[in-house]
Order: sequence, then C-alpha cells, then structure tokens
Amino acid sequence: MFKFELLHQSKRSQARVGRIHTPHGVIDTPNYVPVGTNGVLKAVDNAMLATLNCQLMFCNTYHLALHPGADIVEKAGGLHRYIARNQPIITDSGGFQVFSLAYGSVASELKSQGLKKSDNAVLKINESGVKFRSYRDGQIMELTPEKSVLLQKQLGADIIIPFDELPPFHCDALSLKRSFARTHRWQKRSLDTHLKNPKNQAMYAVVHGGLDQSLRQKSCQILTDLAFDGFAIGGSLGKNRDDLFQVLSHCTPNLPSAFPRHLLGIADIPSINRGVTFGIDTFDSCYPTKAARHGVVFVGDEKIKLTASRFKEDFTPIDPSCTCWTCQHYTKAFLHHLFKAHEPSAYTLATIHNIKAMMNKMAAIREQILNDEL
Amino acid sequence: MFKFELLHQSKRSQARVGRIHTPHGVIDTPNYVPVGTNGVLKAVDNAMLATLNCQLMFCNTYHLALHPGADIVEKAGGLHRYIARNQPIITDSGGFQVFSLAYGSVASELKSQGLKKSDNAVLKINESGVKFRSYRDGQIMELTPEKSVLLQKQLGADIIIPFDELPPFHCDALSLKRSFARTHRWQKRSLDTHLKNPKNQAMYAVVHGGLDQSLRQKSCQILTDLAFDGFAIGGSLGKNRDDLFQVLSHCTPNLPSAFPRHLLGIADIPSINRGVTFGIDTFDSCYPTKAARHGVVFVGDEKIKLTASRFKEDFTPIDPSCTCWTCQHYTKAFLHHLFKAHEPSAYTLATIHNIKAMMNKMAAIREQILNDEL
Repeated sequence: MFKFELLHQSKRSQARVGRIHTPHGVIDTPNYVPVGTNGVLKAVDNAMLATLNCQLMFCNTYHLALHPGADIVEKAGGLHRYIARNQPIITDSGGFQVFSLAYGSVASELKSQGLKKSDNAVLKINESGVKFRSYRDGQIMELTPEKSVLLQKQLGADIIIPFDELPPFHCDALSLKRSFARTHRWQKRSLDTHLKNPKNQAMYAVVHGGLDQSLRQKSCQILTDLAFDGFAIGGSLGKNRDDLFQVLSHCTPNLPSAFPRHLLGIADIPSINRGVTFGIDTFDSCYPTKAARHGVVFVGDEKIKLTASRFKEDFTPIDPSCTCWTCQHYTKAFLHHLFKAHEPSAYTLATIHNIKAMMNKMAAIREQILNDEL
Repeated sequence: MFKFELLHQSKRSQARVGRIHTPHGVIDTPNYVPVGTNGVLKAVDNAMLATLNCQLMFCNTYHLALHPGADIVEKAGGLHRYIARNQPIITDSGGFQVFSLAYGSVASELKSQGLKKSDNAVLKINESGVKFRSYRDGQIMELTPEKSVLLQKQLGADIIIPFDELPPFHCDALSLKRSFARTHRWQKRSLDTHLKNPKNQAMYAVVHGGLDQSLRQKSCQILTDLAFDGFAIGGSLGKNRDDLFQVLSHCTPNLPSAFPRHLLGIADIPSINRGVTFGIDTFDSCYPTKAARHGVVFVGDEKIKLTASRFKEDFTPIDPSCTCWTCQHYTKAFLHHLFKAHEPSAYTLATIHNIKAMMNKMAAIREQILNDEL
C-alpha cells in the first residue's frame, strides 16, 4: 500500500512535489507534520484536526508505551482507532526521548545544562539497547531495536522508525564513530524485525553522522543499501540553521530521489523555506503548536504575539484570508482577552490557526515548486 | 423584544414549560445556563458551544469589567459581537463576586474559612456601594447599583441583574434585616438606572431573605411591585438541598406566573429535578463544566469518573445514545488516557459532553412536564 510518487522536480533546486500513498490515505509533499505526543495535539482534538486538512501526524512511541501501553492500543484495534484518526500517522522509535533524557536537548547542552535534569534517567546503554527509568513512575524499562519495532507494530502507525542511538551534541570523534557504527547496527536489527513482522507499515531509516560530511555520506550509503521505504534526517543537526543546511547538503544528494525524505524535529518557517530546496518532503515539529500556546500565531511567513497590548482593540481576525475555525469566528481582541484571562480555549483557538496556517504555507510551497519558483 | 410565554403548567406541581423571547433568540424553559465567566466557558469556545444547542449563557460582569473592560466590549459592538455568540446572554451585577471575596463561599464559611483568604479585598461597604481591590492588579475599584447597571449596559447582555448586597451565611438577625432593606434599595436604584437607559435588555430582580420565610415573602412582595421582567432566587440559599427547597417553597408561590424565574448558581441534577417542581425556569452553575474538567461526566442522571481504571479498556463512548462531538468520536478508554496524560483536550471533550448531557436532560424534563409527569 505504501508508495512515493514523484510528481515534479524543480528546475531550480532539489525541491520536489510528490505524494506519499499510505493505508490511511495520501500525504501531499512537501508537508508539515504536527506532533501529538500522547496521540493528540496539545489542546486540539483529532476530530477537529481532521477538519484542518492535516495529512500526517507524528506520535511518540515512548509516551504511548508508558501510557496507555501498546497492548491497550492494540486491543483497541490500533492507534488510528484508539485515537480516532483516519488519516496517516508516523511514530518514532522512542530512542530520541530516551537519549534526550540522558543528554538533555542541544539547547540545554549549549548552555552546559546537558546532564543536570537527567541524572539517573538512563541506567545503561550497551549493544543490546537502553535501560532507563520511566518518567511517569520510575519503573525500570528497556528499549532495544527489536522491542521498539514490536511496540510500533502494536501501535500500527502507517510509517515507523528504526531504533537509533543519538550521541550527545558535544561528543569527541571516537565516541561519535562508535555511536555511528552502533546506530546503523541497531537500524539493521530494527529493519529485520520489521520485515519479519509484516503489518502494512513503511519504515524510514534515520540518516546519522552529525556535522561530519563523510559520516553523513557513509550513513546514506549504508542505509540506501537496505530495504527501507524512506529516509529521515536525524542525529545531531547542529546548533543553528547554518549547521542544519550544511547537514542537509551532505545528505539529500546521496539519497535516491524515488524515496520520501523526512526532517526530524524541525519545522520553523525559515528552515522549511530552505529545507524544501534540499529535497526534504516532510517536516515534523511541535514548534507551531507550542508557539500557539504562548500566543504566537502565524500570518504568512510572519508571527504576531496576541498578548501584545496593541491587539486589545483589534477587532479583526488573525488573518482575514484564513478559513480556519478561529479566523472565521474570532477577533484578535477577543483572543488577546482569552490569553490575558488564561482561558484554556485560547490555546485551542491559537493552535487551530497555526496548524491551518502551516497547511496553507505548505500548499503555497507546493505551488511554488510546481511553478519552478523554488 | 423580551417576552415570557407560558406554554404549559403541570397539573402535578408548579413545574411549567415556557419560552423566553430575547433579542438574540428563544430560550426554551426549563433550561440549564452554563457559566462563561470571562465570556467563554472553560475549555469550550463559543462557536463550539453554539453547536450544542445551548440557549442561554451566563457571564460575569465583575470579571469582564476588570478585563477587557466594559469600554472595550462596547467598542467591539457589545458582548455578543465581542465573544462571537449570537444566542442569548445573561450577566450578573458583580455583587456576588465582590461579596464572595469579602465573606468567602458558603462552603468555606461552613468550614470557618470565611474571612481568611479575603483579607482586605473589600475595603468599604456603605449605602452608596462597595469599594474593593481588583483581584487582578490590586487597584481600588467601586461598584454601586448605578455603576453595575451602566457596566451591564455597556456589555449589552439580553438579561441583566440589579446590584444586590449579599449578607454572609452566618449573620445575626439584625444584620440580616439591615442588609435585606439595603439590598432592596439597591435593586430599586438599579432598576431606575436600567429604565433611564433603555437598551433592549430585560432586568431580573433578585429575591432575598435567606432562610427566613417571612423575609422571602416580603422580598417577593417588594420586587413584584416594581417593573422587573423576571425574578432570580438569590441571597443565601442555605447549606444543603433541604435548605434550598425550603427557600424555593417560600419564594415561587409568591411570584407571578407570567414572569420567568431563575435560580442563581445551582444546577446539579438533584436540585434541577426538584427545582423545576417549584416552577424554576432557568438554572445557572459552573458545576457541570467544572466536574468535566475533573473527569466527571454525566450519563442520564448518573455520573462516572473517567479516570477510574475500569475505563482503561472501555472502547465505547461515554453515552452511546449521545450525539455530542465527544461521544460521536471518542471512547472512554481514549478519554481516560487523555486525562491520565493531562492533555488539555481532555477538559474540552468532557465539557462538551456534559453541556450536551445537560441540554438533553433539560429537553427530557420539558417533555415530562408537558406530559404532566412532574
């Protein structure tokens, strides 16, 4: 059922327009993929999300495995039925969450806060996998490539991701090399488990190698030799957008054009605008939804902060050209008031708008590529 | 434009079915009135509320006057336009909030916590009105009958309420008598201000007198002699349901049947079931929405707690016969998970159901009364 259809290759860059066919429908690419960590976006339910033309949703295996548990989701008939979403879903492997617990985020590493909050969360990393403490109840859990894939089989997303090792951003060359070798062994084990347990799912490899050009090339080589259905750019993507674009320039030219490419965890507007020119097809990030909950909403490629006092008497919608629930019903003045009064519906309404704005943005990008403007 | 139409008087009690006509449409009675303190229900936006057939919404003048301010609402074209609600709205006078600040709730008074949290909130109460500190920024503010009504004129709800004095629940007979006299003088001043500033609004009087039968009778007498459009039962309603039903039995027989009657601040199912038999037409309370946010949802006259572990694998809707957004899309198992994961959409989805359940309950009650079963 899974198929990537390349519809148009821009004459001006690696940008392309395509269609990913999945058991739960089509994803037009390039596209934005919102994150529903626990099987739902923060503050927007899945039936409402379905009205926003969101074609792919990202869920986190780590969180869903801790609650409600993959067995419950399987009993419900799989993730789509459990969360009431009839459109495509992608799950990650849980690796990113486990290793973020161990090392903290790149941002906190850059502030030298890397290991502070995470003491004792990860107990042991060896060839087999990772032992860690559940953030929910402190229970000791283990994730291995095989276990991660079997959990993702139970969940039943349309696209799944192999279990990989994420080295910390600050990592010496030797450790990086060791981690690099292991992460590819783990991905091979993940793929084997995936192929041995067919369930109408596609698996995307995760390209590693940090900021090292030759490692990125080597990763592409190793992974394209295996039977993956697509490629995600992961591992360390650097500390800023210049680093990111460097990484992308080291990856996508080495990936076959007949397979879809996903950028893991990044979907701000500048990164998308440039990212598509490297031939990235899908971008996931919780940024648009998190920004919304802080009152930051998108108008074209710009952002406005609804809590600013200048909106107190602005009786126009966020974006008069937007057809979302929020812009069809509410003014900036009322949304300003809802944020000031800490009303929960403020978060819902701003998130609905940002998702719709991202969908509009991606549709515009597809149009630009079709016209060879990008 | 305001008119109360009595459609049917039960042969078995004072229960009746009617229709309140307002500038923004009809309210079928008896009915439940959800509370949107800041111009919106907690976690459910007004456009969504409109799909739930909610015919009257209660907003708090005190909160709206502090933010965004009645002037902003007036500039927007009134409360209906500001909050994007095209159906009827009722505002209170702000008195209840100010005096609750001073005395605490009945519940906290019963636990002898009455005056603790409220130190210094109310600075001065005299014949003119009340001086108090804003809970938002500590600014000193004054509410008088005239000011409260003019604020409600600026807001522009369909039904408004005179500024009244609420005595504390524990109050000696002399203080109660003094407060009783003053609250009626304040209501008269409120009505005068209302009539001098016509704006297509109706004003309901507030019947006072605490648990004292003769005071309740006297209050009805005083207020029915004035040009009010309806009657709200207010003041102290006692410490339990027996007290409440006593109070109602002292009030409604003394009110003319041609006018609508509202019960202030109470709308639990047992109180509604019995309250309608005293001829109460509308009930407001934040209980159904607050219960929802604690995972307590209504099924018929029963309640279930979605966080109970027995719902972890219950793949059926809250109420299979319910047509609400929540029951049409989601299972109890998924809602259980959303509550356990502290997902904000849990509060939204449970609230949507409880509002719809209340609307269904009230429709069933109207049917029972039409059939003389109540």
